[in-house]
Amino acid sequence: MKVSEVLHMNGGIGDSSYASNSLIQREVIFMTKAIAEEAVSDVYCSMFPKTLCIADLGCSSGPNTLLVVTQTVKTVDKIRKKLCRQSSPEFQIYLNDLPGNDFNSIFRSLPRVQEELKEEIGSEFGPCFFNGVPGSFYSRLCPTSTLHFVHSSYSLMWLSQVPKGVEMNKENIYLASTSPPSVINAYYEQFQKDFSMFLKCRSEELVSGGRMVLTILGRKSEDPTSKECCYIWDLLAMALKQMVSEGLIEEEKLNSFGIPQYTPSPLELKAEVEKERSFSINRLEASEINWAACGNKLYSSDDSFKDDGYNVAKCMRSVAEPLLVRHFGESIMDKLFHKYGEILSDCMSKEETKFVNLTISMTKRE
Amino acid sequence: MKVSEVLHMNGGIGDSSYASNSLIQREVIFMTKAIAEEAVSDVYCSMFPKTLCIADLGCSSGPNTLLVVTQTVKTVDKIRKKLCRQSSPEFQIYLNDLPGNDFNSIFRSLPRVQEELKEEIGSEFGPCFFNGVPGSFYSRLCPTSTLHFVHSSYSLMWLSQVPKGVEMNKENIYLASTSPPSVINAYYEQFQKDFSMFLKCRSEELVSGGRMVLTILGRKSEDPTSKECCYIWDLLAMALKQMVSEGLIEEEKLNSFGIPQYTPSPLELKAEVEKERSFSINRLEASEINWAACGNKLYSSDDSFKDDGYNVAKCMRSVAEPLLVRHFGESIMDKLFHKYGEILSDCMSKEETKFVNLTISMTKRE
Repeated sequence: MKVSEVLHMNGGIGDSSYASNSLIQREVIFMTKAIAEEAVSDVYCSMFPKTLCIADLGCSSGPNTLLVVTQTVKTVDKIRKKLCRQSSPEFQIYLNDLPGNDFNSIFRSLPRVQEELKEEIGSEFGPCFFNGVPGSFYSRLCPTSTLHFVHSSYSLMWLSQVPKGVEMNKENIYLASTSPPSVINAYYEQFQKDFSMFLKCRSEELVSGGRMVLTILGRKSEDPTSKECCYIWDLLAMALKQMVSEGLIEEEKLNSFGIPQYTPSPLELKAEVEKERSFSINRLEASEINWAACGNKLYSSDDSFKDDGYNVAKCMRSVAEPLLVRHFGESIMDKLFHKYGEILSDCMSKEETKFVNLTISMTKRE
Repeated sequence: MKVSEVLHMNGGIGDSSYASNSLIQREVIFMTKAIAEEAVSDVYCSMFPKTLCIADLGCSSGPNTLLVVTQTVKTVDKIRKKLCRQSSPEFQIYLNDLPGNDFNSIFRSLPRVQEELKEEIGSEFGPCFFNGVPGSFYSRLCPTSTLHFVHSSYSLMWLSQVPKGVEMNKENIYLASTSPPSVINAYYEQFQKDFSMFLKCRSEELVSGGRMVLTILGRKSEDPTSKECCYIWDLLAMALKQMVSEGLIEEEKLNSFGIPQYTPSPLELKAEVEKERSFSINRLEASEINWAACGNKLYSSDDSFKDDGYNVAKCMRSVAEPLLVRHFGESIMDKLFHKYGEILSDCMSKEETKFVNLTISMTKRE
């Protein structure tokens, strides 16, 4: 079962609970803003290209979709003005996601966004061309040697498919302390295969000296079953198991389900980049964000953000529901995420729970 | 009132009666296929670019959307094989329409189309990257000097807005024998302004020696009110007038409505190209197609294609309904197009009625 297939079936991840997922993504984009700015400044100042080509991979469709690219355009324009360079580069912007993503709503918001950019930056600002690029980022998306800056946030932990042999993982839906070594290996191998394919494709698309900044859900520990990355899915498995015991889900159905995700350690990321050889690493940083950031009221006008557990359940629902619906059917979703919310509330009241983000900034070698 | 605004409001032209409009478009694409093939062959053989960049402007969203670009890719590959050139170019394909167009359905059909291309052409065929480019083709859409081949079919007769002073045209909704000279001038001036802007934008985007093939609804006569281009709208105005006399539409409402279209003569097209100076004309041909081609059963499995008048009404509905709904409201549409179908049937049973297409093939000067 490929993620892409699942998402096609469900018309992309966007659903009513999208807002809560977008809060944490927005937070992460701001946390990593300086790294992205540094990278795009470097590439602009070392090449001053006539057309600056920027790709955002896994752009999704929601309030954050255009945040990174508009930040990038503003950063370049600020430097241009500082350097007193008269003519602005043209911006060619590629927004990528799977073909099932809702590109229509991105495109319909573009005239407003372009107007705002023009107002903020001024009329001397170079034209900015937006393109939708449907396809998997585990395949080629753009012509050879055309991109200057590639960005991706919170997308690359998704594998291209569920690793083989997931039935051996029994009632776990992701890696867990009870996962057998064969399952742990299968997940890691799928990550290696996918991530090295990603690097290979991007190395073909980036110009020499081009830059890439990726933020990905990960872990600090070298143990792929460590709590920091597995607990969130463990609690969802707990809700599913409750439903098995209530006869609402068949045990076999649960045993054949797996989340197509891998949350690597900094060393694992580094190892793949070094093995693939096309990129040198400029930065590799880990940061943490509270699960509770899913419901940060600062960014929300939604009164339904009633408690942290509920908010995290909403957030995870927007991410995992398409996968779960495909496997378990639509009908159990409300009940499942209600249970999950309860479990999350209980656990978050007792302990501090955080996601780990890894941000890696790289340069395409000559 | 800009066409773009109207189409935004209505989510693009695609509606249930799209199929009948697509029949005539498909017919026209086949009629002009040789001219497009010649142009793309010339540009490929004169440059052998590593990446061949192709744009289809006003691509719409329906069964014909990918027809031209897949034909183009196949043409290039046929020549490549004939010339025994080992390596295929990469294809960068830009599919453009207004932001309200249904790009989602195009994107969801792409995996199948790409699979079919690969099967038909073989695995040595260069990767083919599809991009959606939302925006008006009366503005810049792509970076400077990047395109090799631009194609547009049945889109460029649409003006960017209804010409000013349309109230002077009274009960006419397009140019007619009773149109005052000021209205005829206003339509022609809007066409000149729009078409020269189109040429300017494309001349910036095309590489030197790049090619452009445009097919546009037009006329053979030098009289802009001649029957060959105005009759189809005249009959729709007749249906609207009947509804005014029945009290279903206010007379003032009809008097303030105009179709934002201009159907130029070959000489008018030529004059704009020569005035703008960026392009040399290789071919400028007029062809004709029966109104009845709207319902060619060869291409249809739809039993509702019951008679020619009805089919033409369906075809025109798919084109004009968004504009009409915006001005007159949704509620009168069924009645209006029923009347229009009756009027069309009656007229088509008595005389031969044809659309005139102009196809112009150009080269961007050095």
